[in-house]
Amino acid sequence: MTLDRAAVSARLDRVRAHSRGVGVDALLVTHLANIQYLTGFSGSAGAVVLLSHACLLVVDFRYVTAATAETAAFAGLVTVTTFQNSYDEALVEILLRKASQRVGIEAAYLPVSRFNALAAGLASRAPSPVPPSESVPILIPTERLVERARIIKDNAEVAILREAGRRLAAVAQVVPALVSEGRTERAIAVDIEVALREAGFSKPAFETIVASGPNSALPHARPTSRAVQAGEATVLDFGGVYDGYCVDLTRTVQLGAVSAAMQKLYAAVAEAQQAAIEAVRPGEAASAVDAAARSVLERHGLGEAFGHGTGHGLGLEVHEEPRIGRAIPRLPDERLQPGMVFTIEPGAYVPGVGGVRIEDDVLVTAGGCEVLTR
Amino acid sequence: MTLDRAAVSARLDRVRAHSRGVGVDALLVTHLANIQYLTGFSGSAGAVVLLSHACLLVVDFRYVTAATAETAAFAGLVTVTTFQNSYDEALVEILLRKASQRVGIEAAYLPVSRFNALAAGLASRAPSPVPPSESVPILIPTERLVERARIIKDNAEVAILREAGRRLAAVAQVVPALVSEGRTERAIAVDIEVALREAGFSKPAFETIVASGPNSALPHARPTSRAVQAGEATVLDFGGVYDGYCVDLTRTVQLGAVSAAMQKLYAAVAEAQQAAIEAVRPGEAASAVDAAARSVLERHGLGEAFGHGTGHGLGLEVHEEPRIGRAIPRLPDERLQPGMVFTIEPGAYVPGVGGVRIEDDVLVTAGGCEVLTR
Repeated sequence: MTLDRAAVSARLDRVRAHSRGVGVDALLVTHLANIQYLTGFSGSAGAVVLLSHACLLVVDFRYVTAATAETAAFAGLVTVTTFQNSYDEALVEILLRKASQRVGIEAAYLPVSRFNALAAGLASRAPSPVPPSESVPILIPTERLVERARIIKDNAEVAILREAGRRLAAVAQVVPALVSEGRTERAIAVDIEVALREAGFSKPAFETIVASGPNSALPHARPTSRAVQAGEATVLDFGGVYDGYCVDLTRTVQLGAVSAAMQKLYAAVAEAQQAAIEAVRPGEAASAVDAAARSVLERHGLGEAFGHGTGHGLGLEVHEEPRIGRAIPRLPDERLQPGMVFTIEPGAYVPGVGGVRIEDDVLVTAGGCEVLTR
Repeated sequence: MTLDRAAVSARLDRVRAHSRGVGVDALLVTHLANIQYLTGFSGSAGAVVLLSHACLLVVDFRYVTAATAETAAFAGLVTVTTFQNSYDEALVEILLRKASQRVGIEAAYLPVSRFNALAAGLASRAPSPVPPSESVPILIPTERLVERARIIKDNAEVAILREAGRRLAAVAQVVPALVSEGRTERAIAVDIEVALREAGFSKPAFETIVASGPNSALPHARPTSRAVQAGEATVLDFGGVYDGYCVDLTRTVQLGAVSAAMQKLYAAVAEAQQAAIEAVRPGEAASAVDAAARSVLERHGLGEAFGHGTGHGLGLEVHEEPRIGRAIPRLPDERLQPGMVFTIEPGAYVPGVGGVRIEDDVLVTAGGCEVLTR
């Protein structure tokens, strides 16, 4: 990723501010996407201890070379460190040595067993009796301290997502030609994934969905050996990872003459998507974007046929914040801000008729939004 | 998956016995691979409450149809249930209604936040004052209750893994022809993944590794835009998911005449792999298989060049138990038993020379082992 010192410095400081806000003076980051966000490190194991004056990236021997290379531009901001035994022992050592008092952990990700092992390690390794000037660090469950920073993309991220969206839209141009009579869903899915690679994506962002005919009525269908037939709609939902960032797109392709009912369904979903895109602007609640799509579908008598939310955030993960859905107690309903990137993907699924979903990715701008996948 | 009632019944009873053994009378299963093992359900969200007399599969509205279909053959053994609000509210309801006293949770997977939400839900929803005949369920961290069952494959699993291994070995036959001068690592990786699909795998089991020339010296390299050159070795590590089960294979392909040093490296790793395969038999410690490979490489002066373990279990996950590595305090060193399936993948990585890894999958049998990827 093209990540510069200034961006990393700003990210670290934003998360430090969020951490201070909940009263923790160190944050143990164990969720890999959050580690990558803070340090640029892209390995599949590691941990970060974020202190007020330092950011330690802890990796095992397999990743020392890669971590050192990936953080070379951030010397002084991010320090790579490794260990002999286990991650948890190393983390306990660091937390004791750095004398942090209140250590935040990522409660949405840290498993109970690791929490217990870290807590036991801190308790057993602390000096006994504790000198009056010190106290044993305690682990504080926290939520969304890094995610709240990630929800607003910085310039480097916007540039990557814009390029990724452009490339995904180009793949979407060639995809309808892959859907022809007699081809199986699985064969089409393979071709889409090859097209993604050829377009420069390092891998699919998720398992490609190709759902034809009756299968299109299932929002979470997997590709089967079913052959596409004329007169049917096929839902194609695919995405790719480009320079670490995920984009996601759905088209519903009609092969030959489809029924009037399917045409109506398509028109209604397209109208709902357009209404949702037009509702995107800074200051609006995420749930208002969902409501814009939902009210169009309800007006067409398709409220019950739209069983999922309107969209989800995109970034280092293919499902991240903000959630674009109904307002639900205890789940955040974000006010939209410039720099948020998410999908708009209303759908309608009618057993016996079929299903339609249309999905694009948008970036919230000062004046409204930019569609990244046009 | 071709899973019959008898297999499911045996799996449930094995895990119930393990649960009783640690003093819990209900087990909350939240790890998806464990849910699939116990019920056959293959969706991407869900939970299981395993009681002495019932097994409840809790899914959200998206998966009711799929879960009902996938468990149809296990009526009476597995009961599908859904809910209105959230998983955790539904689980609290069930645990209170079923009046379990000591509820095991999967501590290696359940995040701290869900543990706390469930514990708070149980405390707040319990009758107050608690009637003398009842008590509030408490959550007990447990480890490996389902994994200990999964470590021994039953007949249905062995049949799938044998077929998957046969198909992966067939892919391995065509893969060397993909490595030719001037082709990039990325292009070769795409071709391997297409070959996996054509061989009947539903998806790659992990991100395919193609590491050529100097990159072959990095055990965890990702495919780059580097073009393969004559006189080089290329490590190709790939796997597929077949009928839900993962297999995994590595070949090191030499293009043209390679250096004498590389040839020696190759011969030493091949010898180490053979020694490890010959060490596999029931009753042997997993660490003895690792030691067999390691001692060969040490004898060739390559002890330091072999920085990872010799293998890992295969099944519903591409990395599962048993771990085939050095004996380490606090990590299980399993005694091998018939029905265990794992990789044997010694390697040697020498900066400036290159790397070699050779990997096959074996099934422990009564008399020794069967190589599944020949």
